[in-house]
Amino acid sequence: MVPMNQWIKIKAPATVANMVCGFDILGFAVNNPYDEMEMQMVERLPNEASVKIINIDHYNLPTDPEKNVAGAALIALIEEYAERFASTRPAGVPNNVGFDVKINKLIKPGSGVGSSAASSAGAVVGANHLLGKPFSNDDLVRFAMNGEKLASGVKHADNIAPCIFGGVTLVRSIFPLEIIALPSPELHVTIVHPQIEVKTSDARSILKHQVLLKDAIKQWGNIAGLVAGLMKKDYDLIGRSLEDVIIEPVRSILIPGFDALKIACKKAGALGGGISGSGPSIFMLSKGKETALAVEAEMIKLYTGLGLAHHTYVTTINEKGVEVIN
Amino acid sequence: MVPMNQWIKIKAPATVANMVCGFDILGFAVNNPYDEMEMQMVERLPNEASVKIINIDHYNLPTDPEKNVAGAALIALIEEYAERFASTRPAGVPNNVGFDVKINKLIKPGSGVGSSAASSAGAVVGANHLLGKPFSNDDLVRFAMNGEKLASGVKHADNIAPCIFGGVTLVRSIFPLEIIALPSPELHVTIVHPQIEVKTSDARSILKHQVLLKDAIKQWGNIAGLVAGLMKKDYDLIGRSLEDVIIEPVRSILIPGFDALKIACKKAGALGGGISGSGPSIFMLSKGKETALAVEAEMIKLYTGLGLAHHTYVTTINEKGVEVIN
Repeated sequence: MVPMNQWIKIKAPATVANMVCGFDILGFAVNNPYDEMEMQMVERLPNEASVKIINIDHYNLPTDPEKNVAGAALIALIEEYAERFASTRPAGVPNNVGFDVKINKLIKPGSGVGSSAASSAGAVVGANHLLGKPFSNDDLVRFAMNGEKLASGVKHADNIAPCIFGGVTLVRSIFPLEIIALPSPELHVTIVHPQIEVKTSDARSILKHQVLLKDAIKQWGNIAGLVAGLMKKDYDLIGRSLEDVIIEPVRSILIPGFDALKIACKKAGALGGGISGSGPSIFMLSKGKETALAVEAEMIKLYTGLGLAHHTYVTTINEKGVEVIN
Repeated sequence: MVPMNQWIKIKAPATVANMVCGFDILGFAVNNPYDEMEMQMVERLPNEASVKIINIDHYNLPTDPEKNVAGAALIALIEEYAERFASTRPAGVPNNVGFDVKINKLIKPGSGVGSSAASSAGAVVGANHLLGKPFSNDDLVRFAMNGEKLASGVKHADNIAPCIFGGVTLVRSIFPLEIIALPSPELHVTIVHPQIEVKTSDARSILKHQVLLKDAIKQWGNIAGLVAGLMKKDYDLIGRSLEDVIIEPVRSILIPGFDALKIACKKAGALGGGISGSGPSIFMLSKGKETALAVEAEMIKLYTGLGLAHHTYVTTINEKGVEVIN
């Protein structure tokens, strides 16, 4: 537990959801970019809002806690804290507990690398730390999913889970929630964010509600191959399994130069990759840093050629998830 | 290489395809039941059929090699041998090579535990042994799939692969063929074969060609969970992942007492299970032999109660696949 009115610092990593073939179930955290947050636990008056959001970036995200993803996640946490821990609350936690949250968003909203998940996950990990860790990681994922619901209309955990757990995570089931940490070999990650807007809700609405059984069979072969490849540390198997015959053919239409980029990156040595979450960012996995840098060069070349503003990251898988720095 | 006209003995294990959630991609071999076969390499006259099938069981399966699954698999092998190894053929292999095959089918045809796969796989592993092993296991799977095509109309490898490789196998892709051996913890297997007929082709034809995306997502969560559970040796995760929301709800209608049986077996301690291949056999996985026996007792009780003739097996996963016993 941290005493009231004492600020803590939080680092909340960007995340890559879906991991090509694992739509809505797989994701991983990266070491760069990440959001910086500060939080303190406070006592509120009965007529005050429990959560106060202070944005110290220039994105003008909502500060009304019910409309802010970190706020929505914290409100869920505070409600459940009152229900489950009213009688066992330690002396240092006020009766009418609240949180002040400063968010310095370094992960650009709408870029497709879990910007909203970082805010939601960072906030609930921070609050749990301030409260003396009464909640499990699974609880925290549940709370943070309220932020995702606000952002995209759907309670999905494929960004939240790796953001909180770190590494590669599998969301085997949402109801009941079950998250499985998957071991992985060292992987270098190259991300390009072409500066176009793809709304998560739009990227979801274009998906077909039905898929061909024969495509589903291909997809689950690749998912099983990817999980086996990660656990066996078999880079070639990972690469061969990074194929998506269901979501990518539909969504990639929204991203200029997608097919050409993928071909160029693989030619430069990438194991494989695809759309990060619902896009527009594209990620590629590589075995070594040099390859990851060569892949970055291809990304820059392609989007410079298309005259499209873009930003790139060369990073690695983040194994720690959200970190509290006291 | 084995000299011409010298008989070898072969044991070809039964296999459980699909493994509940892994339709068309997962399967495993069991130690009981298994087919016994004998084979010899012979020289044929140009006007003779290359393969001669001798059934020493009472099932009256076709002996015309083009209509027999072992025959179809061997014809494919002999054709490719002629193409690839014509110039490098060792002295002991005749120019016009053929095989005599005696099959003692102990795996009842149509029982859903890979009876046709055992014949096809046993025959090609035996032939490869007689020829001095010119072919890889992947080649042998390819040849044996011709037998499956004859039996069910579809070239699927989910019985063939575990029959040849042993253990639990993943068919990540059929074209190009890629088989991955998955490590698994010790698992006890209980199988019940209710004596009703379910034709593989019928069990396939009732499947819907389209599935809901939301069901596919549940399914791939379970597949990823099952692969992770096997590799982590996490029995509870294996159990939770043995759920099929796509195929089982359709196919289980063909099997009397299916739902009640599943509930009773799980209550007796089974981790989980479901339809073996396209049925009618049902398999259950358990952590220990005692549980597997308790599960068998439930199966016998239920089918005795229904007045339905049945046969049960309590066995373990076969790690060796087809064995040649000289």
